[in-house]
Amino acid sequence: MSTRAIQDDYPPAFAHCYGCGAQNPHGHHLKSYLAGEETVARFTPDIRYSGGVPDHVYGGMIASLLDCHGAASAAAFARQKEGPKPGDGSEPVRFVTASLKVDFRRPTPLGVELVIKGRLRSLEGRKAWIDLSLDAGQLTCAVGEMLAIRLPGRTRT
Amino acid sequence: MSTRAIQDDYPPAFAHCYGCGAQNPHGHHLKSYLAGEETVARFTPDIRYSGGVPDHVYGGMIASLLDCHGAASAAAFARQKEGPKPGDGSEPVRFVTASLKVDFRRPTPLGVELVIKGRLRSLEGRKAWIDLSLDAGQLTCAVGEMLAIRLPGRTRT
Repeated sequence: MSTRAIQDDYPPAFAHCYGCGAQNPHGHHLKSYLAGEETVARFTPDIRYSGGVPDHVYGGMIASLLDCHGAASAAAFARQKEGPKPGDGSEPVRFVTASLKVDFRRPTPLGVELVIKGRLRSLEGRKAWIDLSLDAGQLTCAVGEMLAIRLPGRTRT
Repeated sequence: MSTRAIQDDYPPAFAHCYGCGAQNPHGHHLKSYLAGEETVARFTPDIRYSGGVPDHVYGGMIASLLDCHGAASAAAFARQKEGPKPGDGSEPVRFVTASLKVDFRRPTPLGVELVIKGRLRSLEGRKAWIDLSLDAGQLTCAVGEMLAIRLPGRTRT
């Protein structure tokens, strides 16, 4: 697994996201890592982020985690596909979400570490389709699919 | 338009949601209202909730607002369809999200009031399909569609 978070390579001007931006002093600072053919993030929501009942995570948090992790995954997979190029190893790549679908399979328990994973379904030009999952222990609590779009101006070195 | 928020009729045991629960002291306390054949909520995200760039709202907040408003809309439309019944006017109805799809049409500006609306597409037994939109001024920034499921034990008076 990579030791440097995908979000740590975001250009500073595009790293203000409340969910995962290093430049946002208030946010969740989600960190996603490339691990072979998948991406992984781990996050334990604070107990304040409860759903309708106090021992479950609220849906907005689940969508947020999948959204931030999916956009990071798209950036990582795009860089992985392109491969290393001399002198541009740190070239920033940034995707934004065009569409996100979340299926909530079961209530997500609060107070345990959640593991969010991403896999590349396809990459065509500036479009990346990412499959996502969110697990608590052995249980998959939510799955997602995302269409992410690469920001223009950062698609070429 | 109704003067009482849909969320204010949630059973207290199911009103802990960070996004819209009256029982959560930390959360956003989104308030949704029934207005004829649609539902409406208004919310101005704090500037900390920025997206990748500081003047846009982060995707997780947009998904959160649509999620909470959609579940509230399902409850309101279900009650509206059933009509008033003597002695059960305050019967709690609570839906949870089974699936939510969000299409981010354009960046959502930060620092302005957002208007979230819901419309009932169909209601079959415990299942409600809700169409959602999120506007900033005259611009529709995101649209959503949700499948919400009525919590058992609260489906009959």
